[in-house]
Amino acid sequence: MTKLPSHVDIREVSLRDGLQIESPIGLSAKLDLLGAVAATGVREVEACAFVSPSKVPSMADAEQLAAHLHRFPGIGFSALVAGTGGARRAMAAGMRAIEYVVAASDAFSRANSGRSSAEATAQIGEIVAIARDSGAVVEVMIATAWDCPFDGPTPPQRVFDIAAAARDQGADRIGIADTIGTATPGRVSALIAGLRPVIGGIPLSGHFHNTRGAGLASAYAAVCAGVNRLDASVGGLGGCPFAPGASGNIATEDLVYLLTDSGIDVDIDLKAAIAAAKVAESVVGHDLPGALLHAGDRIRH
Amino acid sequence: MTKLPSHVDIREVSLRDGLQIESPIGLSAKLDLLGAVAATGVREVEACAFVSPSKVPSMADAEQLAAHLHRFPGIGFSALVAGTGGARRAMAAGMRAIEYVVAASDAFSRANSGRSSAEATAQIGEIVAIARDSGAVVEVMIATAWDCPFDGPTPPQRVFDIAAAARDQGADRIGIADTIGTATPGRVSALIAGLRPVIGGIPLSGHFHNTRGAGLASAYAAVCAGVNRLDASVGGLGGCPFAPGASGNIATEDLVYLLTDSGIDVDIDLKAAIAAAKVAESVVGHDLPGALLHAGDRIRH
Repeated sequence: MTKLPSHVDIREVSLRDGLQIESPIGLSAKLDLLGAVAATGVREVEACAFVSPSKVPSMADAEQLAAHLHRFPGIGFSALVAGTGGARRAMAAGMRAIEYVVAASDAFSRANSGRSSAEATAQIGEIVAIARDSGAVVEVMIATAWDCPFDGPTPPQRVFDIAAAARDQGADRIGIADTIGTATPGRVSALIAGLRPVIGGIPLSGHFHNTRGAGLASAYAAVCAGVNRLDASVGGLGGCPFAPGASGNIATEDLVYLLTDSGIDVDIDLKAAIAAAKVAESVVGHDLPGALLHAGDRIRH
Repeated sequence: MTKLPSHVDIREVSLRDGLQIESPIGLSAKLDLLGAVAATGVREVEACAFVSPSKVPSMADAEQLAAHLHRFPGIGFSALVAGTGGARRAMAAGMRAIEYVVAASDAFSRANSGRSSAEATAQIGEIVAIARDSGAVVEVMIATAWDCPFDGPTPPQRVFDIAAAARDQGADRIGIADTIGTATPGRVSALIAGLRPVIGGIPLSGHFHNTRGAGLASAYAAVCAGVNRLDASVGGLGGCPFAPGASGNIATEDLVYLLTDSGIDVDIDLKAAIAAAKVAESVVGHDLPGALLHAGDRIRH
């Protein structure tokens, strides 16, 4: 076991991964959620996705949202892109950090971005070049890193190969995403152990869903393997429109509780995260699955 | 990190911890649930509690249920007791394994059994003697091992002292229970590391609730610390009538998925556990929180 990190950075993804499966909620509702998220003390927020408005209607207002981000100077914002067109839109909108999604499985890659995993991988260098021209950084987010809803289990070598390409093509960061929430701690530990020699010193982040209840256990396994950057979404909002069976991201407030109670420092205030989760429930108009939303913070300690 | 165990024994506690907070459901409904549980392949089931019928009405039929257990010869049954009277009732009813609860916090101990933690600890030897007379085994279950709903955090030394008393007074097994679902992986690892030198070779089991979403992560942390016996409840049924804020046990089917997918063998069949969770929902008449109950087993692998 690697020594546990003393601090874990949590990137809030409710505005992007959280909302993408929801009906479009309107810009002012997004700004309400963003305001509540900003009040948690979070330092990184994935704000939107520059993708096809017809495929993901809830992200159609990415440019409009991006125009408001200057109001939150303490937060580093990023946006998801699925190709060069989205990367150019993100740069034009002033984004200075992007997540470029490369699915490790072909079937998901085709459903998500209309091309094979190899084709998406080959474009990393071009995405990096577009970002560099604007002084922006690129995280290559490897989707379906453990399982694909169509192809089944993802051979770990596919993940290693994409990570090697990301390294060789100049990615600033690499992320591994359990897109459909089927990863478990044992496979998380194993994949990260295999990735380390491939990626060397490139920062690695983890993105987990809680579809089968194992999301927080998988996230903690990633932390035990030295990962110090995790995605989470207030209330457990989230899902993926192209991944049948996917459900919510791990809930920010539950992750904050787990990490801080385990002795690991985070930037996010627990009570403010629970408050933001309630705002998230309000803006989407339905209950969210986060545990602390239901349990409350009943025991002081 | 201790080497991961290759096999974890799961003790099904839906019939006891699962039902104790529910309105009494009647013996035939319990037998329906037990039949579904037995069909999972489980080897150990905590069937009932020999406690005050006025305090826990749903356990009032413990003797009647015990009379049916011979119908399931492949399963080792146990019962929870809170004192010598319950231990004698359990022996008279033919039980050959009991869990004797000793709460590590005084306030919970008084709420649960009307006496201090020290008084409950002092009685371990007497409980063991009662069991020995019938050739039965005793697990000392240390409740509120991390937090008490009334007293707050439990000093680990209290847990170590109870474990030492259990060792000295002849307990066959020791369990540590996160009664209110507030433990997290970091504190689970730390408590077990502190317990090991105290308990030596006495088998240790873990009992976790998912109140704050960290139950499975805590259970896996226990497994990583070498614990190879975990309590779970189909569907995540459960709670404690004397612990405000407690919610369901970790769900058997979610634990089975997590462990087997992590490469750890269990005796329980996943599909049968999901089916048993549906029976549990039916007999208690409301939805249960287990993740796989909602996600299903959508991805084959």
